[in-house]
Amino acid sequence: MPEDAPETVLSVCTTCRATGDTAEPRAGARLLAALRAEADREPVPGLRIEGAECLSVCKRPCTVAVASPGRWTYVYGDFDALECAEESARIILAGLRNYQKTPDGLVPWRERPEAFRKGVVARIPPLTAARGDTAS
Amino acid sequence: MPEDAPETVLSVCTTCRATGDTAEPRAGARLLAALRAEADREPVPGLRIEGAECLSVCKRPCTVAVASPGRWTYVYGDFDALECAEESARIILAGLRNYQKTPDGLVPWRERPEAFRKGVVARIPPLTAARGDTAS
Repeated sequence: MPEDAPETVLSVCTTCRATGDTAEPRAGARLLAALRAEADREPVPGLRIEGAECLSVCKRPCTVAVASPGRWTYVYGDFDALECAEESARIILAGLRNYQKTPDGLVPWRERPEAFRKGVVARIPPLTAARGDTAS
Repeated sequence: MPEDAPETVLSVCTTCRATGDTAEPRAGARLLAALRAEADREPVPGLRIEGAECLSVCKRPCTVAVASPGRWTYVYGDFDALECAEESARIILAGLRNYQKTPDGLVPWRERPEAFRKGVVARIPPLTAARGDTAS
């Protein structure tokens, strides 16, 4: 993709703690580190991974959000980052590879990782949506 | 604001049903109608209100999402649209007036309507965030 192409941004909540876990770094920060390591190992073209201070989904740690110009935004929760953060990272990045292949972010249900199906917290239409009622 | 200024979009889930309610139009569609009526009565500059088919927050009807270029995106749930949709609409639009006054969408906690504080489902950083770690 061209260098100036709009990027997809994966925001990883670094404030998330696993239930009952008081360790530092927090589960969310550990998930962020695992995602960066996995993306270094097997890059996802056009994806930028960032830490975010609280995505306000505190009851469903760990939480991530993916946003991309012209695509639906998704928020996912319930990711483990204590037992196997690497596995969570692989699942998330595999899901984002499918997301990147779509023009609008809408991946067919069967092609979504189970963790995305069960863990979806919310989705938000793109600002540039070409919907029927966009004329204001 | 200039005519070509980026708009803030309020997406209202029209798929939302209130718990146990089987009436048509659904609660979400009723909330959308109330929001449009209230915005006609007292416009919010730069705000576009749209219906959306499912925001995937099905356990917390009614649900809305607000997004704006350069601002944090917010998703809110738990809005009543059966007893008093008009009151919900007024609360939402009042909250969005405060949102519109900010450069980044981050309204001070005390200035947020209680329904926004309690009903927040998720928030997502702006794509254009000028955060410290944005260099990829």
